[in-house]
Amino acid sequence: MSHEVVVIEGDGIGREVVPAAVEVLEAFDLDFEFVEAEAGDATKAETGEALPAETYDAVGDADATLFGAAGETAADVILPLREAVDSFVNVRPAVAYPGVDALRPETDVVFLRENTEGVYAGHEDRLSEDLSTLTRVVTSSASRELAEYACEFVGDGRGPAGDPDEGFTVAHKANVMRETDGRFREEVLAVADERGVDADEELMDAFATKLPLDPTQYGVIVCPNLAGDVLSDLAAGLVGGLGLLPSANVGHDNALFEPVHGTAPDIAGEGVANPTAAILSAAMLLEYLGHVEEGTRVRDAVEDVLSDGPRTGDLGGAAATDEVTAAIVDRL
Amino acid sequence: MSHEVVVIEGDGIGREVVPAAVEVLEAFDLDFEFVEAEAGDATKAETGEALPAETYDAVGDADATLFGAAGETAADVILPLREAVDSFVNVRPAVAYPGVDALRPETDVVFLRENTEGVYAGHEDRLSEDLSTLTRVVTSSASRELAEYACEFVGDGRGPAGDPDEGFTVAHKANVMRETDGRFREEVLAVADERGVDADEELMDAFATKLPLDPTQYGVIVCPNLAGDVLSDLAAGLVGGLGLLPSANVGHDNALFEPVHGTAPDIAGEGVANPTAAILSAAMLLEYLGHVEEGTRVRDAVEDVLSDGPRTGDLGGAAATDEVTAAIVDRL
Ligand SMILES: CC(C)[C@H](C(=O)O)[C@@H](O)C(=O)O
Ligand SMILES: CC(C)[C@H](C(=O)O)[C@@H](O)C(=O)O
Repeated sequence: MSHEVVVIEGDGIGREVVPAAVEVLEAFDLDFEFVEAEAGDATKAETGEALPAETYDAVGDADATLFGAAGETAADVILPLREAVDSFVNVRPAVAYPGVDALRPETDVVFLRENTEGVYAGHEDRLSEDLSTLTRVVTSSASRELAEYACEFVGDGRGPAGDPDEGFTVAHKANVMRETDGRFREEVLAVADERGVDADEELMDAFATKLPLDPTQYGVIVCPNLAGDVLSDLAAGLVGGLGLLPSANVGHDNALFEPVHGTAPDIAGEGVANPTAAILSAAMLLEYLGHVEEGTRVRDAVEDVLSDGPRTGDLGGAAATDEVTAAIVDRL
Repeated sequence: MSHEVVVIEGDGIGREVVPAAVEVLEAFDLDFEFVEAEAGDATKAETGEALPAETYDAVGDADATLFGAAGETAADVILPLREAVDSFVNVRPAVAYPGVDALRPETDVVFLRENTEGVYAGHEDRLSEDLSTLTRVVTSSASRELAEYACEFVGDGRGPAGDPDEGFTVAHKANVMRETDGRFREEVLAVADERGVDADEELMDAFATKLPLDPTQYGVIVCPNLAGDVLSDLAAGLVGGLGLLPSANVGHDNALFEPVHGTAPDIAGEGVANPTAAILSAAMLLEYLGHVEEGTRVRDAVEDVLSDGPRTGDLGGAAATDEVTAAIVDRL
């Protein structure tokens, strides 16, 4: 079966790490049709639009998309693209890799972030000279859909413990946002209960204290959109930064994969960017398209190279992007 | 000049640590009139109300209030009490104390959290079976008032560096909440500019990654209400937890002081709670009422005892609350 995969390099180091990830995908004998598309600051400078309609449509029509990073226009690119793939969940693993300097090397968590609503569905209004409002939206349907996904995710042993009994933790702020986060919390816990999945809960502020104190308490964390944004970035800080972390925006029959890092303007164009996060995003893409064994092989090769292979500057090495990529391809 | 100070122990270890803090205040030859008032879970069980009108009124009429902690009813108690003192800023220092096991002992930051609006001014509605909304509120007036306070705070050398040139950092999510956090960001930066105070900015998610990676980059952080709640709790996790952290809810001619920790039901009633956060909150109260030298003496005594005095169980010791309190009073 052939897969149509849209490839958007975007800006900055996106132009270096996405080709590296494509090289890894091409190393397998799989039938991919890659379609290149444009988005980001450079595209805006050229065409007047950060996300041209052709790109939006191509992403919507594809089987999956691999996206790099966008600069100033990041929100204008990534938020509509999440919508283009009809993504209801953003999957964000944060694990400390061997040989990488991490504040909490024992961290091994996956965030399942609601990807359609909360403040991101924000209707904002300037009501007077002095006052602006944002209408935050929470629905039972989106909360339940996320929870169903979470139950399958842990049930399939895809959580860090690999054990369906591990269950998940819901992080929220329902003591203050009683109606909206109250609804989220209640629906997520109800679905877990119906499915016989263990679920506990934390207030998101308490979670922000406890995660650095002891990350081993947590495995899969289910949260509203902005909570997931901030808390998963916090976890990134505990495993050594954003340089290695992939993510998946999963929809009903489409998905978009992106490294968590940005455009890294300070090193862009020098060929020294760390391609690992993009390559691990490609591993998630492989798994999503049903090539689970290939996904595992990529992950194993990455860990191998991190243990004793060439390293880029962010990890204290001096290797170029293509040396690291070649080493990973070599060990597939 | 006599000061009327309302004292609310609340629930759990609040009943142990607040009397300890009062003992410290009484050790000085100052003219305090302490007024006891009730609030919290136990009060609700007895009277039907977590926050009786007499307590609300007493707090509003006093010069300052010292509050312990409340259990399940925390939000019903603390949010109206912040309003009773007309508090526009929540001051939350997070510093690692000597001899305390901290993930990032070099952390030394102060959060200045907006204390009246954002999602906390939340108008929530259940619009249908499926959908609820929350209206988040941001005004220029509250943003500017917070910024004016921040400029005075750093200008007076009250930031961690003690240096007016250190300026402050604004943390926000204006790339998504463009109108509301956009307004907040713009007004705060405008006030800093008018006052000649250095200010830089971070997206709150990027801040959550960077703070654990290198807390020494930051000093005073100015943020919207919920951002301040979560990010200051994250900082608490870096300095070893909530056990030692005080906070101040400052209004125009009134203020409320509270330890950041909760009721600790697991150890409540045993006389072994760590009184440090409550005592440091009393130090902030002393400073607020103009007794700056006495505040400094409390802080110094606390550091002294943390270095080589008796310790409670949370810090690996076996001392009782009153032993630690006596040691602190002894070294004033
Ligand atoms: C760029 C921004 C809109 C985005 C978000 O807030 O979701 C980013 O922070 C992320 O987490 O992918
Ligand atoms: C109890 C709760 C309402 C409160 C808040 O969210 O402000 C608490 O978390 C705090 O930070 O003081």
